[in-house]
Formats: sequence, C-alpha cells, structure tokens
Amino acid sequence: MNIKEQLQQKIDTRTKPQGSLGILEEIALQIGQIQNTLSPQLQKPTMLVFAADHGLTAEGISPYPKDVTWQMVMNFCSGGAAINVFCKQNGIELKVFDVGVDFDFGEELPIVQAKIARGSRNMRNEPAMTKTECEKAIQQGRDFVKAEVSNGCNTIAFGEMGIGNTSASALIMHKITGFSIEDCTGKGAGLTNAAVDNKTIILKEIADKYVTNSPKEILATFGGLEIASMVGGFLEAKNQKMVILVDGFIATAAVLTAIQMDASVIDNCIFCHSSEEKGHKKMLSFLGVRSLLSLCMRLGEGTGAAVAFPIVKSALAFLNEMASFENAGVSGIE
Amino acid sequence: MNIKEQLQQKIDTRTKPQGSLGILEEIALQIGQIQNTLSPQLQKPTMLVFAADHGLTAEGISPYPKDVTWQMVMNFCSGGAAINVFCKQNGIELKVFDVGVDFDFGEELPIVQAKIARGSRNMRNEPAMTKTECEKAIQQGRDFVKAEVSNGCNTIAFGEMGIGNTSASALIMHKITGFSIEDCTGKGAGLTNAAVDNKTIILKEIADKYVTNSPKEILATFGGLEIASMVGGFLEAKNQKMVILVDGFIATAAVLTAIQMDASVIDNCIFCHSSEEKGHKKMLSFLGVRSLLSLCMRLGEGTGAAVAFPIVKSALAFLNEMASFENAGVSGIE
Repeated sequence: MNIKEQLQQKIDTRTKPQGSLGILEEIALQIGQIQNTLSPQLQKPTMLVFAADHGLTAEGISPYPKDVTWQMVMNFCSGGAAINVFCKQNGIELKVFDVGVDFDFGEELPIVQAKIARGSRNMRNEPAMTKTECEKAIQQGRDFVKAEVSNGCNTIAFGEMGIGNTSASALIMHKITGFSIEDCTGKGAGLTNAAVDNKTIILKEIADKYVTNSPKEILATFGGLEIASMVGGFLEAKNQKMVILVDGFIATAAVLTAIQMDASVIDNCIFCHSSEEKGHKKMLSFLGVRSLLSLCMRLGEGTGAAVAFPIVKSALAFLNEMASFENAGVSGIE
Repeated sequence: MNIKEQLQQKIDTRTKPQGSLGILEEIALQIGQIQNTLSPQLQKPTMLVFAADHGLTAEGISPYPKDVTWQMVMNFCSGGAAINVFCKQNGIELKVFDVGVDFDFGEELPIVQAKIARGSRNMRNEPAMTKTECEKAIQQGRDFVKAEVSNGCNTIAFGEMGIGNTSASALIMHKITGFSIEDCTGKGAGLTNAAVDNKTIILKEIADKYVTNSPKEILATFGGLEIASMVGGFLEAKNQKMVILVDGFIATAAVLTAIQMDASVIDNCIFCHSSEEKGHKKMLSFLGVRSLLSLCMRLGEGTGAAVAFPIVKSALAFLNEMASFENAGVSGIE
C-alpha cells in the first residue's frame, strides 16, 4: 500500500462510521501525504503578515485613508488587532514584516524591517512594481519562509495589511481567471455601492491599459509588495513540504498567482475560509476547492486562516488519537 | 443604551471594518446578551453525553449492531472516541451518562449511572417510552445541568450515543415540522440506499400508527431516553442562562422538541454544525438558523459542537481583547 492507501486505512479503522468526519478526513489525508507519514504533526504554526502600501489609494478606491496601513502595523505591534487575538487564541506565532509601508517605523518595534519601496506605484499611471521590485519581494517571501523552516516550523499561513489591496487582488484575479472586473471587484474594507461602482470603473481602465503575458508580469503590474512577498512565500512553503493555510481574498489572489508558476503548490494548501469579499467564492471555484469556514468574514490580516486553524488541528487529533475498532473492541458494520 | 446597543457599539469600535467579522460578531452579540455583560466569558465548558439503547434496532434500521452503544460507552471511558479527542483538544470537560443502555456497566467506570430503563421500547409495537420514563429522563437531564451550574459551568453542549437514534430523531422531526418521512430519513451511521428505503417504510408505518398531540407526547412516543434527557438539559440550560452549543441531527431534534415547550430556548443556542444526515439542513431551516460549520460531518456524540467550540471562543476573544480605533490610534472611515 502507498502512503495514501495506508492513511485511508488508518482513517477508516478509527471508531466512527466510515467517512463520518467528512472534510476533517480529507484534511487528515492531505496532511499525511504532505508529510509522508501516518502520524502527521503541526509544528510551530506561524503566521507571516506582510504590510505594504498601494499607490492606487491616491484614486480613492478605499474607504480608509492610506495611513491606516502603518497605524494597523503599530496596532499589530501592541497586540490589539484581530490577527493578534486569534493567533494568541490558537497557538500560532505571529510575525509582522514591513515589505513596503510608506512610514518609518522605529527600530525598536517587534517587526521585521524589509522595506523594498515606500509602497507600490499608482498603477493608473505606471505598473505597480518594477520587475526588479517584484522579484525582490518574491525572493524575500521565500527567504522569510526558509528562516521559519530552520526554526522547526512546518505549518505556515500568510496574512497582509495594505489599504488598497483588494483592488490589486481584483486585477490579478481578473487577469488570471478571465472573470469580469465586475465579478472581481467588491466592497473591500466597506465601500458604499456607489464607491464600488467608481472602483470598478477605475479598475476597468487599469485592466485595459496593460498587456501582460505571464503570471509574474501580472503580479508586477497589478500586485503589491505584500502580495508579491506572499507569492514567494507560497512557492517556498510548497518547496519545503509545509502545510499551507490560505486566508481570504488577497491571500487567495497570491496563491492563485503562485499556482500559475508552480501548479503543485495547491497540493499543500488548505483553504481556510470563504470571504464575503465579492470575488472570493469565484476564485475558490476557479481553483476547484472549497474552504473550511464560511463565516461571512472579510477582515484580512490572515484572520480567516487563524480562526480556522483549530479545525485543522481537529483533523490530526482524530487521526493520531482515536482508537481503532479492533483496539477498542467495538463491532463494525454487520 | 440597552445591553444590545452597548455590545454593538463595542463590536463596531474594535479595530476592523464594521461587520467584517461576520458571524463571529453575531455570536459575540448573542453571548453578551445571554450573560448581560460587555465582557462575556465561557466558564468550564462541558459536554454531557447521554447514552441509551433503542428497541427499534430489532427492526434492522441501523447498519451497526445494538451492542455498539455499550461498546462505544466503554470507548468513551478509555478516551478513544472522537468526542474524547475533540473535547480534550478544545478544553471541554466531557461527562458520560448511562440513561438507558442495555448493559451492566461496572461501578468503577468513569460514567454517571442513571439508567431509567434498559433502552426504549420497540415503537413498531408500543410507544418508545412510557409517560413516566420520559418525564424521568427530562427531569434527570435538568438535574445534570443544575449540577454543572453549581460547579461554575456556564457553557454546555449535549452529545449522544444510541444505535438507532437517527430513526427516533427523524420521527420527532417529521411530527414537529411536518416534513415528509422521506425528507427526515437518512443514512444514519452509514446505511446503503436500499436500507434507507427499508428504514423509510418502517418509519412511515410507525408515524401512521400513533396520534400525538403535544411535544412531550411526540417525545415519549418516538424519542429515546438519551433524547429526552437532552430535552431536559436544553430546557434547564436556558433556565440557567447558559450558552448552549447545539450539535447535529439528534441534538437538533432534541432542541426542536425543547423549543416547542419553551420558545425562548433558541435565544441561548449556538447551532454548531450542519450535519450530512439528510434531515438536518431542513431542520435548521425550519428553526430559521444557520450553523457555524458545514464540514460534511455525521458522527454524532456531540462532535460537531466540540469541533466548533474554538469558533465561539474566537467570537469572545475579539470582543474582549481587541483594541478600539481610539485606543490604537487608528483612523476610521474617511
């Protein structure tokens, strides 16, 4: 028997009706295969949150001012944001990276200072990133993940903070999936319907402005420094045989990009939640996946992955800790 | 401002877009109202699992032999069942009650011995319980909950073990909701399609055999000792202002019955998961509620409630631990 068959046999002989743990059984099977073991473990689960600004905010595509990006990084530092609370609750280590915020953070702050630029450019005028900036962000994302692996981490999630990044993600989604800009554009952090209409017009204009021929070109043109860092992170996490927890709309746009570069990335991904942000469910269906949670959340930061993490732990708990019918002396189906 | 308005204000001033935590915000609001406080706490979360046999198993309506009921109780005692694993993972105290198993458990076992009868009667021939048995089971369920309250518990879930109890629950659902027997009857622990057809024929015959005029009469005629204990448990938990975690098909049939007796019970209920057992989604829609999880689970024992519990904790974690916009110095919507 190969590892998949052995895992399935282990799953099927636990004291429960076959298949009765539903998606938990699928997750157990997936993680067992990722780790190539019948007793998989989640070690040092870590959330890397990448923060960057977006030049497009000059066009009024977000209800919040751009300054909220750095203000929220400060909030991460003092432990008051949603991602702090959920990571603490669920035993996930949280690390915050400035990969492109338009603000000078003090060196004493508990963040990794890895600023590539002071935000992406206004893509209404020019591509969001130069090819070099984009490559550098991808490489940094890879390096950050490698550092976690050398710390003993085998389970990783990526979060983000960047006012304006649902616009970048919508454009990436549009270019990769072919869904219309309308299908990809949502309320972000809470736009009114009229403001969504305005955002849609601007994003359409931008989509039409550029011809892009590769996922990397799409990423450089429409992405952001935090999104490119996530792309690198996803690619390296797959390379390192890690369990990858995928958050909502922005994280899924990043993993969608990574999957265009390396289709096997998807094998290691657990899609944690289905966001209320308009395009997300379509993005998940484009990838042919379903999420663990559907709680009408649309906060970002990695919060969907952090909240879903106990479900992933449940999948391994049943696999590793339940008795078999034989050991428990329980009769099977007659 | 009343407590609901104060809670909503607290929720809305946390550092996140308004409404962006979706159902977590609804849960926070609900629990704050149950406990009448802006800082609700989940104390000594406890899972009471009631076990009982069903006379109807003589008619071959389950793929598992009746002995699996007592064998699984033994498995609970040695910690090998799914409910043990998930309760342990999520910090829930597990207590197991023999309220009607057709087996003599040793007194040294870590279960509460509260056997009312050696199982319910075969309702193809006579009502499942006498009125007295049913009343006694309801009262016991109430008493078990009162005991937990005096231990400082304010958060409770109910699980069950009883081969044959999807049949009992399907009949309760049919009588209370008016859905057809076909809509209420599923595969239980894993029947083949042909066996479901046979189960359906038998349940139809039984449904037609009795005229029942009250929820208590429905419960006594078609229920089981573990289901009646759960009904009492739900009623008392509401009475004690507890947070109530509702599991899947059988637990929902019990709470559906309790709600007929006291409509306010629903205010304290968090519906934890949507089961793969056929009737469950219709039962939830009859109650006008949605569940936290939809993971294709159909195991019973209380497992859906135990797996969902961290989501409930997340709801209170964000309410109690996140910073406000003002305290964090984060700008609001422009």
